[in-house]
Amino acid sequence: MEKVNTIAAIATALGEGGISIVRVSGENSLKIVNEIFKGKDNRKLLDIKPYSMRYGFIVEKETQELLDEVLISFMKAPRSYTAEDTVEINCHGGILAAKKVLEEVIKSGARMAEPGEFTKRAFLNGRIDLSQAEAVIDIINAKTEISMKSAVQQSKGKISEEINSLREELLKIIASIEATVDYPEADLEEVTANEVSIKLNKILDRINFILSTAEEGKIIREGLNIVIVGKPNVGKSSLLNSLIMENRAIVTNVPGTTRDVIEEYMSIEGVPVKIIDTAGIRKTNDLVEKIGVKKSKEKIDDSDLIILMLDSSKKLDAEDKKIIDYINKKKYIILLNKTDLGDKIDLDDIYKLNSKFIIKTSIKSGRGLDKVKSCIKDLFFKGEIKSTDLFVTNMRHKEGLIRAKESCIEALQVLKNTSAIDLASIDIRNAWANLGKITGDTLEENIIDKIFSQFCLGK
Amino acid sequence: MEKVNTIAAIATALGEGGISIVRVSGENSLKIVNEIFKGKDNRKLLDIKPYSMRYGFIVEKETQELLDEVLISFMKAPRSYTAEDTVEINCHGGILAAKKVLEEVIKSGARMAEPGEFTKRAFLNGRIDLSQAEAVIDIINAKTEISMKSAVQQSKGKISEEINSLREELLKIIASIEATVDYPEADLEEVTANEVSIKLNKILDRINFILSTAEEGKIIREGLNIVIVGKPNVGKSSLLNSLIMENRAIVTNVPGTTRDVIEEYMSIEGVPVKIIDTAGIRKTNDLVEKIGVKKSKEKIDDSDLIILMLDSSKKLDAEDKKIIDYINKKKYIILLNKTDLGDKIDLDDIYKLNSKFIIKTSIKSGRGLDKVKSCIKDLFFKGEIKSTDLFVTNMRHKEGLIRAKESCIEALQVLKNTSAIDLASIDIRNAWANLGKITGDTLEENIIDKIFSQFCLGK
Repeated sequence: MEKVNTIAAIATALGEGGISIVRVSGENSLKIVNEIFKGKDNRKLLDIKPYSMRYGFIVEKETQELLDEVLISFMKAPRSYTAEDTVEINCHGGILAAKKVLEEVIKSGARMAEPGEFTKRAFLNGRIDLSQAEAVIDIINAKTEISMKSAVQQSKGKISEEINSLREELLKIIASIEATVDYPEADLEEVTANEVSIKLNKILDRINFILSTAEEGKIIREGLNIVIVGKPNVGKSSLLNSLIMENRAIVTNVPGTTRDVIEEYMSIEGVPVKIIDTAGIRKTNDLVEKIGVKKSKEKIDDSDLIILMLDSSKKLDAEDKKIIDYINKKKYIILLNKTDLGDKIDLDDIYKLNSKFIIKTSIKSGRGLDKVKSCIKDLFFKGEIKSTDLFVTNMRHKEGLIRAKESCIEALQVLKNTSAIDLASIDIRNAWANLGKITGDTLEENIIDKIFSQFCLGK
Repeated sequence: MEKVNTIAAIATALGEGGISIVRVSGENSLKIVNEIFKGKDNRKLLDIKPYSMRYGFIVEKETQELLDEVLISFMKAPRSYTAEDTVEINCHGGILAAKKVLEEVIKSGARMAEPGEFTKRAFLNGRIDLSQAEAVIDIINAKTEISMKSAVQQSKGKISEEINSLREELLKIIASIEATVDYPEADLEEVTANEVSIKLNKILDRINFILSTAEEGKIIREGLNIVIVGKPNVGKSSLLNSLIMENRAIVTNVPGTTRDVIEEYMSIEGVPVKIIDTAGIRKTNDLVEKIGVKKSKEKIDDSDLIILMLDSSKKLDAEDKKIIDYINKKKYIILLNKTDLGDKIDLDDIYKLNSKFIIKTSIKSGRGLDKVKSCIKDLFFKGEIKSTDLFVTNMRHKEGLIRAKESCIEALQVLKNTSAIDLASIDIRNAWANLGKITGDTLEENIIDKIFSQFCLGK
């Protein structure tokens, strides 16, 4: 049996909306859609010009009944998302219309696409490399502006350029070593262990520099994970609300956050931040309270930064101390809130704590909010963040860089100990291969499958 | 200040998906998008051919930073959805990308579209009439195949054709009356009261026929509202599940149904049906139980048909009787379930009930399920339902037809009593105007606004 190579899926989100798109990709895509298309004056679809649109109806093949009014776009290989012939059926919104149109496309000869299969084809067909494909997931999942912009840069090949240039340098070194070792009698410029070391050190510096962006890169991608803790009524929700108010334009309600925990994504002085209000976890019912405390603890354990809120108008009590005990090994900022109600808290108790970041606030009147924000920024970022700068945002890329770094260091060690350039060459090759994993040039198929399975359907 | 006439909105559903579309409509749409577009080799957008696409990036106007990789489509007035110049920006899926692109489009000079404003423009610009516009909402909200197909027919103008032809007939009558009354001396064919009556009766017959489709039309659009009642463990959920199992391909999970009530849309022998399992309402907690019973009662009151399930292996008990008392004035089918467990129920009790539809079932073994389904169909449909037939599915259309019918009857009455064709002419005009409300030809602006406010954003 011939393998069905033309794939189809609903490419837009499911839900109420004006437009849905069914995307079809593969060599038979135009033929398949043509069979269920009814154009004006019964015009066929087969003569549609690339990158143009045609109006008509999708019909049920069996009954010839009209299913939906559509606009068909045709993108010819290789100038399409997948680098294959691609047809997009722009139909009415709503769940059913797109579903029925997809059903007919399948009946007409396409098969359902797997999650991420369109992007996977773009990769397998050589239109984009693996880091660019990964950037597509990041764009879709982006929760703040800077994470989106950074992903767009990556999708344009920013990481790839850097990695490819490093790999080219490594390849030049390997070539010069091979020439020296294999054709010592030839009239070629010979390379010495010392020369190789100098070049390798330069590459190592660049790898180290790129790796140094990974901490900020992780935050750009996932947001800085901040948890607000403190006893009831100390002002946790007010703090969160004040921050949200200033961020209204940027805050995105992300579906999928559980109802028990209040999580908001926002941008604080340009830093993408996910703030979790543990107040949202607490409920009156005992069992729920227990779960809530468990969840609070999990969130605290996973956090990058904690904001500890204390009531400055009261002395520290047992509940405060219990919270402090739990967070004391993490990085935290202390907010002495409710300064408008007086100053009864014993500052000596506070100075003993494991944090030198102490800010007096009155969230109610807005006092200290600016200091909280600049403290968050200073704690995590050295300078301005620009999305156009190079950042490693992906753990898999970071790992590839670390492996490449290790291989470079080993090569340098070999050169230092033995001066045997042919021995070092093996490690240099490893460095080259490890960098290649980032762009997908030297990657096993099962890892590729794993990466694309993270995609949503229709991309 | 000049009024901003170019509108924009996200046209796809919000959520995780591969593609989002930002739609821009109005005379400046191309100019507005061009200002934030960066094509290959800095090519501008302004020379894009109608019905073609162009690849590039949307940039932030202020910083020129890349926001997203996009594909731009351009549809030139009047051959577009709104009949105005329309640009669609096909960007990456996910919530943020589309949101940011929309933000830039707004900054660049468009304004946010109101819900339904694109379709409203299509109507105001004369591309579609009101009944076709309403069909667009119905397509988006369609929950079963037949309701969708029927809406597609309506969007093509099926209702409009019929209404327009009736109005033309009425207009001819009015013209002949006017000619007779105003120019009695002219050499025109005069019309008599008797002739007008004959013509009006023919029109009345057609209106009556169209109105006769309204009951089925309502069911096609909203689904037949069936509620399953019966005491706990009699098999209500099993019945629902059995019906769902057979309908798996068609059943759509509709967001927005409350968690307390189990509602499923499906097609039973071609009949679109919404089935409500009152079992889903019951909870152990007392207060919830109370609310549950209240909701059950509301659902029963609103239903078109009730399925009463009784346990045939036991005698009727107080709980059964309480349920029967409540539903006794509604239309219901009696299922004697659990026939596999024996026959202890007293059939004389059953025959006394206010329903002649009694079916012995064993949902567990599948016995009787077919009979249940054909009973549902026979109770509500006279023949086969074909989506291509004419159906009045919209309450507003039904009302227009009823008003037109009343005016025709009044005109006939006047003709019978007085033979004064000029008096009857006033009622005939009313009939003509009332039919015009359906297509939107004679409709006040506030009603038009109300209709379009039911749309979702971006359509």
